[in-house]
Amino acid sequence: MSTQTASILVIGNEILSGRTHDTNTNSIAKTLNEKGITLTEARVIPDDIETIIRHIRDLKQVSDIIFTTGGIGPTHDDKTAEAVAQACHAQLEKNQHAYDTLVNHYGDESMMNEGRTKMAMIPVGATLIDNPVSAAPGFMINNIYVMAGVPKIMQAMLDNIMIQLEDGEKTISRTIICDEAESVMAPLLSAVQDQFPAVDIGSYPQYNLGDPRVSIVIRHTDKEQLDHTQAALIDALTNAGIQHAF
Amino acid sequence: MSTQTASILVIGNEILSGRTHDTNTNSIAKTLNEKGITLTEARVIPDDIETIIRHIRDLKQVSDIIFTTGGIGPTHDDKTAEAVAQACHAQLEKNQHAYDTLVNHYGDESMMNEGRTKMAMIPVGATLIDNPVSAAPGFMINNIYVMAGVPKIMQAMLDNIMIQLEDGEKTISRTIICDEAESVMAPLLSAVQDQFPAVDIGSYPQYNLGDPRVSIVIRHTDKEQLDHTQAALIDALTNAGIQHAF
Repeated sequence: MSTQTASILVIGNEILSGRTHDTNTNSIAKTLNEKGITLTEARVIPDDIETIIRHIRDLKQVSDIIFTTGGIGPTHDDKTAEAVAQACHAQLEKNQHAYDTLVNHYGDESMMNEGRTKMAMIPVGATLIDNPVSAAPGFMINNIYVMAGVPKIMQAMLDNIMIQLEDGEKTISRTIICDEAESVMAPLLSAVQDQFPAVDIGSYPQYNLGDPRVSIVIRHTDKEQLDHTQAALIDALTNAGIQHAF
Repeated sequence: MSTQTASILVIGNEILSGRTHDTNTNSIAKTLNEKGITLTEARVIPDDIETIIRHIRDLKQVSDIIFTTGGIGPTHDDKTAEAVAQACHAQLEKNQHAYDTLVNHYGDESMMNEGRTKMAMIPVGATLIDNPVSAAPGFMINNIYVMAGVPKIMQAMLDNIMIQLEDGEKTISRTIICDEAESVMAPLLSAVQDQFPAVDIGSYPQYNLGDPRVSIVIRHTDKEQLDHTQAALIDALTNAGIQHAF
């Protein structure tokens, strides 16, 4: 089973100004993790065609799949479809299926103004992604999945995409909670990491409690390697007299 | 008054796996917006030295200032200080002031194990950033501000940094709330945008209510331009019979 890599391109001035707190990155990250697709990188960039094109080309170099969010609505500040079309050297054309879906959603063709017609402009060669919330579809071209920015719509599109993508090797994760300062455990963690270099051992302190508490998170696709790493960590913590639970 | 540009580099496997939802980007974005510093881009990347170096070099090309979060703790998975040192061709050395601060925090020098000493390893030539929460400092070198990943500590460091940075021209923002679908208002918004090309006019639909509602957000550093744009939008909305409030 091969593992695909993915990246996320969050497109929107409102994220960079701080007005909107992006929650899509975390939703996509969790979904990819469950699917067995490795997220290598995420970027937040403004609604600017040249900028979008440059980042799509960059991310193509480091990931098999790109997920974009934002910028596919009806207004002048929605520039993602145009940018993705240009990045893929594709024409942006009125997609009849997308148009018919929008006509059906709004009632009849007399309701199709300029903005609504814009949402049916899709790069030639793209596959549509269904939008059960507000009809205007996302699309996929050259392994670039173009989704809406509104979280509810993004999630519905992502669910549709996931049905079509193959599962990769799933990363299993285990957490050991320790009642000790991270700095005390550092040498112990380092030694176990050296013993199991392929396993991702992360150490995450919690500062919101009075007493020190650290979550050690171990991650790998192979259950047996994870068992050995977990056993080694528990041995080391026990030998050091550090309270822990898993 | 010149306006500086900034970028954010969020460093941490736990963000990419979806385990942790990054809130630092939004906090930094809001703070920069208030300070009059333009955020051009944000990236989330893994705890990997070569990857961190590559992104620091990339972001140096597109922003005056880089803010990093994460990866400056005591454990083996904290690699940011080493990576930033390498990216800046600086040696990583035990910083006496950082070391003394940590000794003072932990009680006496006998408490300074390997992990705690690691947090005093700072690139030569860097300026320390005070950490009032857990003593281990951040640092600044070549306009790269290296901060902790734990939000409470990051925020304290960011506050300290902001005192030292000069204010830029502040972007003023105004919001007009409209009781109409975004797709209906698209031509109107587009016309006003053409009239005021320098003003950032954003359109943000809300789908959580039954009736259509859109926030039109206009942003610019010049109050007069903003006044004219706002007046033009209000005229256009009124002429179109669209209910609005501001």
